[in-house]
Amino acid sequence: MQNMPQRVPSLKQGKMDLYWAYENMQIIDQIIKRYKSKDTLEGYSIGICLHITKETAVLILGLQQLGAEIFICPANPLSTQEHIVSLLKEKGIKVYREKGKTIQSFFKNMDMVLDNKPNIIVDDGGEFHKRALQKNYKIFGGTEETSSGVNRLNAWYKKKIIKYPIIAVNQSRTKNLFDNRYGTGQSTIDGILRTTGILLAGKRIIVCGYGWVGKGIANNAKGLGAKVIVTEIDPVNALEAFMDGFEVKPISDTTSFGDVYITCTGQLRVIRQEHIKNMKNGVILCNAGHFDVEIDMDYLNSEDNHPTTIRKNLKCYKINKKNIYLLAEGRVINLVGGDGNSPEIMALSFANQLLSIIHISNNCNKLEPKVYSVPKKIENEIGVLALKSFNIQIDNITKEQESYFYS
Amino acid sequence: MQNMPQRVPSLKQGKMDLYWAYENMQIIDQIIKRYKSKDTLEGYSIGICLHITKETAVLILGLQQLGAEIFICPANPLSTQEHIVSLLKEKGIKVYREKGKTIQSFFKNMDMVLDNKPNIIVDDGGEFHKRALQKNYKIFGGTEETSSGVNRLNAWYKKKIIKYPIIAVNQSRTKNLFDNRYGTGQSTIDGILRTTGILLAGKRIIVCGYGWVGKGIANNAKGLGAKVIVTEIDPVNALEAFMDGFEVKPISDTTSFGDVYITCTGQLRVIRQEHIKNMKNGVILCNAGHFDVEIDMDYLNSEDNHPTTIRKNLKCYKINKKNIYLLAEGRVINLVGGDGNSPEIMALSFANQLLSIIHISNNCNKLEPKVYSVPKKIENEIGVLALKSFNIQIDNITKEQESYFYS
Amino acid sequence: MQNMPQRVPSLKQGKMDLYWAYENMQIIDQIIKRYKSKDTLEGYSIGICLHITKETAVLILGLQQLGAEIFICPANPLSTQEHIVSLLKEKGIKVYREKGKTIQSFFKNMDMVLDNKPNIIVDDGGEFHKRALQKNYKIFGGTEETSSGVNRLNAWYKKKIIKYPIIAVNQSRTKNLFDNRYGTGQSTIDGILRTTGILLAGKRIIVCGYGWVGKGIANNAKGLGAKVIVTEIDPVNALEAFMDGFEVKPISDTTSFGDVYITCTGQLRVIRQEHIKNMKNGVILCNAGHFDVEIDMDYLNSEDNHPTTIRKNLKCYKINKKNIYLLAEGRVINLVGGDGNSPEIMALSFANQLLSIIHISNNCNKLEPKVYSVPKKIENEIGVLALKSFNIQIDNITKEQESYFYS
Amino acid sequence: MQNMPQRVPSLKQGKMDLYWAYENMQIIDQIIKRYKSKDTLEGYSIGICLHITKETAVLILGLQQLGAEIFICPANPLSTQEHIVSLLKEKGIKVYREKGKTIQSFFKNMDMVLDNKPNIIVDDGGEFHKRALQKNYKIFGGTEETSSGVNRLNAWYKKKIIKYPIIAVNQSRTKNLFDNRYGTGQSTIDGILRTTGILLAGKRIIVCGYGWVGKGIANNAKGLGAKVIVTEIDPVNALEAFMDGFEVKPISDTTSFGDVYITCTGQLRVIRQEHIKNMKNGVILCNAGHFDVEIDMDYLNSEDNHPTTIRKNLKCYKINKKNIYLLAEGRVINLVGGDGNSPEIMALSFANQLLSIIHISNNCNKLEPKVYSVPKKIENEIGVLALKSFNIQIDNITKEQESYFYS
Repeated sequence: MQNMPQRVPSLKQGKMDLYWAYENMQIIDQIIKRYKSKDTLEGYSIGICLHITKETAVLILGLQQLGAEIFICPANPLSTQEHIVSLLKEKGIKVYREKGKTIQSFFKNMDMVLDNKPNIIVDDGGEFHKRALQKNYKIFGGTEETSSGVNRLNAWYKKKIIKYPIIAVNQSRTKNLFDNRYGTGQSTIDGILRTTGILLAGKRIIVCGYGWVGKGIANNAKGLGAKVIVTEIDPVNALEAFMDGFEVKPISDTTSFGDVYITCTGQLRVIRQEHIKNMKNGVILCNAGHFDVEIDMDYLNSEDNHPTTIRKNLKCYKINKKNIYLLAEGRVINLVGGDGNSPEIMALSFANQLLSIIHISNNCNKLEPKVYSVPKKIENEIGVLALKSFNIQIDNITKEQESYFYS
Repeated sequence: MQNMPQRVPSLKQGKMDLYWAYENMQIIDQIIKRYKSKDTLEGYSIGICLHITKETAVLILGLQQLGAEIFICPANPLSTQEHIVSLLKEKGIKVYREKGKTIQSFFKNMDMVLDNKPNIIVDDGGEFHKRALQKNYKIFGGTEETSSGVNRLNAWYKKKIIKYPIIAVNQSRTKNLFDNRYGTGQSTIDGILRTTGILLAGKRIIVCGYGWVGKGIANNAKGLGAKVIVTEIDPVNALEAFMDGFEVKPISDTTSFGDVYITCTGQLRVIRQEHIKNMKNGVILCNAGHFDVEIDMDYLNSEDNHPTTIRKNLKCYKINKKNIYLLAEGRVINLVGGDGNSPEIMALSFANQLLSIIHISNNCNKLEPKVYSVPKKIENEIGVLALKSFNIQIDNITKEQESYFYS
Repeated sequence: MQNMPQRVPSLKQGKMDLYWAYENMQIIDQIIKRYKSKDTLEGYSIGICLHITKETAVLILGLQQLGAEIFICPANPLSTQEHIVSLLKEKGIKVYREKGKTIQSFFKNMDMVLDNKPNIIVDDGGEFHKRALQKNYKIFGGTEETSSGVNRLNAWYKKKIIKYPIIAVNQSRTKNLFDNRYGTGQSTIDGILRTTGILLAGKRIIVCGYGWVGKGIANNAKGLGAKVIVTEIDPVNALEAFMDGFEVKPISDTTSFGDVYITCTGQLRVIRQEHIKNMKNGVILCNAGHFDVEIDMDYLNSEDNHPTTIRKNLKCYKINKKNIYLLAEGRVINLVGGDGNSPEIMALSFANQLLSIIHISNNCNKLEPKVYSVPKKIENEIGVLALKSFNIQIDNITKEQESYFYS
Repeated sequence: MQNMPQRVPSLKQGKMDLYWAYENMQIIDQIIKRYKSKDTLEGYSIGICLHITKETAVLILGLQQLGAEIFICPANPLSTQEHIVSLLKEKGIKVYREKGKTIQSFFKNMDMVLDNKPNIIVDDGGEFHKRALQKNYKIFGGTEETSSGVNRLNAWYKKKIIKYPIIAVNQSRTKNLFDNRYGTGQSTIDGILRTTGILLAGKRIIVCGYGWVGKGIANNAKGLGAKVIVTEIDPVNALEAFMDGFEVKPISDTTSFGDVYITCTGQLRVIRQEHIKNMKNGVILCNAGHFDVEIDMDYLNSEDNHPTTIRKNLKCYKINKKNIYLLAEGRVINLVGGDGNSPEIMALSFANQLLSIIHISNNCNKLEPKVYSVPKKIENEIGVLALKSFNIQIDNITKEQESYFYS
């Protein structure tokens, strides 16, 4: 019964949610404890553009404990959890959150954060960096959470407009192996189930894109009994999907049987008129990519400008007498239709954020204005902390083995 | 954000939900069309004790279309969808739903239905049959939806207190293979995710009971990356779980590492003091069985009579300084914490109900007062209808093959 | 390199193989120990028609230890392991094994066993029972190992030609759940790999028939990365395959893409001219069913009467300029192309045989001339023994739970 | 019945095997056709140290068709297929294969190849490069097939002893994603099944190492119903295994329950005295890594210097009154106990070899003496060829999408 109008949640609920996130994000707590006594981030101000959720609150309050001043705005107009905003404000965090869900208010929030001249920039998508790169004050460095964002940063680097070091958190194995695959893999399926309540067993699910997110979604859908068909533009990714046991086809060849389409490509207009007009009655479309550009909303709205709302986040477009169901207005389904990625997963991602931010603060004189990977030392530190939090021991390399590599 | 107080949903929402259920339950529609012109159930009155959900509404309005008079009460105090009650009432169905969630009001609803002297009895759990069997008016027959209920009916048959024919819908392959395994398998996981938002990948999940429901839950949890450990009392079931790739242990041997416990045994006090007191901090307990007896609530409440509500349907008991999280007060998690089984699955189950009710009405003079299986002819009819609705063709046996069996 | 001419294996090899089987069949040993002191089968003579393998040797030598006199002939002309024949003869077992692989010699072996008037008849396929039923001496009872055989026995029962009690070993859950699904599931895939060496990942494998054997093969093939498509004639089986995540189609609709066809239906001419002529170049055909009738050999040989032998058990037929590869001449691939089912699995099946034979010897006066299921008591005994041999403990039902079913 | 002494296979068998490999390696054929007319490798002599199998024969005969002169020696004393040696010799290839399986003869073969002063060096393990690097004649470049070898090359590069460009074939996605994961994943399981015939369902299999090979083995074993436990020394690999649904433990913590141990680490003495002495009776040990150093053979032989041969490639060591079974003397089980990787997979790996060799011949003046990755252009070419050979189409990127990355 999640599909109804809801009262504004209370601050009390915010505190309970924060408690629940803490319970499942013990890695963050361990890192904070380790660095807290050192006033590690004393004197730094951090501008943050992330989805405002209970897990993000754990990161932000941690940064605050390390001495930083925080300014935050939402990475997506629809994903903000209001009671978390209330909670953060109560804790003294400056949250910029213009009323209205227009793209203008979205950008205005970013500008208001930047007006505070934060010297570390944390982004989720690249849009916030784009604006920060146009500012003239001193920025020590930044981080970027998503693949979509890193793609853009790399393009900008070629154009020579990167002016401060940026750590691509998404390229950390402890981020992309886990957040993208297991995290978004599960939460996307979860968002679809909450929104539609359909049975996955037997369904034919078309996963567009076989990067880490696509791999995660495909495996989770298969794990619940769906038949998964993958679409790709990269031949090696396509071959991998094929060998992983999935059918691989061009999107056009799937329209006669596809029950559910999930986009996760980082690309625009992946599902468009030429596909939609041939889809079968009752098809469900949704997007797991960062931006709401993967499904061609313009086409949908041009065909039916009064779609019917069936349930929360579930609209029916009438096109050629067929019902085309769209979830969450083509926005990222796991955040809009569900709770987003699990706290256990966000703990890993945000451990990368946290340690990368500390790394920037410690090395801002040495780092160059380019896109860096997360240092291997940080990855291993996170791996060790995560195993510890799951109570897992592993083997140690022997002396004899260490020398063997050099024989 | 499903975890907040909600406004009472509107009748309009009820209609939209019913539309969505219809869209995904086309088998029922096909059956109604086939039998409608014949006034098949004209003159019959049907007393129904089922979970009042949008899918049940499809069944009930179908029975109404076939000419029956319907009286209904809920099979579980917590699972009733209020806006569906409103909708049914608007459609002229008599819904008995005493305010209050006490066991007394639960039973009183059943008695009020029986006061109308319905001559066909549809139950989900056996409690409604138990009361109907004590009445003195003529009952033509009935159906029973669950395994838990059929177990009880079989026990009563041995005690010679069955007075009318009852079709064990649950023993139909088109019910238990699908509803229990894929339906409850998915919806239980869905209910846990909606309630807790935890990541399943990596978790150790203890599934208590390896009947069809247990098999479904175990496979779905494994499909999302969990490590599943099965507990059983039946040696052959245990051996099957073991060969299916799951670890099998007594419950006591799992308490040091179990992250989530899910009961689905049809038995009482499966998880009790001797287990709970040894569980690790942060463990999550929930139940997927019909009755809320599988987790020992008395013990939990005796140890902590003021558990903290963390989120909707998620309570924290403090026992021996450890946090023991209980979902949905030990009630059936897929219905209380989620939307229950998917409409596609309920279509199969309710096709069995529908055709079994028609079978009783056609054969009430021939059937004896005992527990019957769903006739194989009905199972095949449903199989054929379901394949048709999924647009699947299969092979036909050749004449030569037909005669081969008798060579 | 299994694909070359081989020297006749030595008796020494037979002893080593028997050792290896014993190591993996400890359940049989435990049963023998329990019943040995009682001279349980003293005075009984047993006629056996089974595949002569190392595992069968363990059963036979066990029956001998319990005091029985044994006469044995092979259940399949191609599956006999010669060194096991030598070993059995050395141990004093009478093995009837006419030279020649003709169907006449196959039947003659059976008749020679029956000439000894064995009073318990053990069969694998029904052909041996067919002949025993025509004899006029006293037979106490028998057992049947396969589904194919049980189908025939049931047909004969309707024709009233069953003259002694026969226990359908295959209908035991501890047989069909395990032997057919995990045993034949694995050994069929193993036989295909040994014979062809192909990669399963990415392949489209058509499994004809979704009984226990088909389920096992489909799941194992999927587990190795294949895309499985199921064909069926039974609508409920087809629906189950569909919900299990497999595509379901008529055979004719698979010929344009099927890479490998595996039959396991118990039926004849499942794959025939109408299918083969449309198959793609390079397709591989094989059979996992008991009899070599599922692939239409007559058609293949009529199109190309000089197929080329590529490797051992791998022949290439040239039909319409396409290469059609046939494995093991259409005979049961797991036994002809591999070692047959694993000893761990045969231990479960033969525990059913062993306890069923003892059951017949103890109850021959009480049993009627019909087809019996394996008694539930025996199934549980086997379950308990198997769990013990795997060192698995399970829970016990509590007193309170026992009485709960009758509330 | 693969477990018996065998006659030397005939040249005719070699031709049939080569035919079967060609049938399943069409990518190689397509590459040869594309480059053949250009006398691409005319004037080059290539020294090759690879496993001499039917698939390698396809590569070698292809290189010969492109104009190269070939000298070859085996990469492993036990993996040579004799009938393929005969075939290659007949085709005019110079095969160096000293009688005797000593390490001396193994090295002598390499030296004899190098005496011919080949100017391109193809190796599988690094040992051949080690010797070539000590020679004083002009070498244009080389390739290395395995991870084990690349690890060594990288170490040597740091020591500045690399004198010619070497392309690390193993680091190509079209090699390691497929050969190591699906290829060795399947063939290792296949080798274990052929050697032991055991049932995997229910078994506890300890996979030591979770690189690509370990991932492949773990998934295939799980796919056949085994319970897989992973051991690792790298925390991020360990975390990945944990999230993939496997238990992760130090080796010492698995000895009380491990049924089968498979090493695939590239390291030495992974399984050693401290582990073996605590293992349970009947445990099976085998190795899937390139070198036979992962299981401590010295320890095994010091405890029991007369192990019993049970079947071909299966020996029983008696240690502390327990049976410890060792497969293939600790050598790579998929090649020694089976046919090695499938031709479909070797086609991908050898396409990398072939195109890398052509790349070296075209660019020998430009390349520096270091370890190179396979150029991305080659990877994509192989991806496209492979998809074509499987008859798979994929989508093309649109113009609009191409420009989107730079927005």
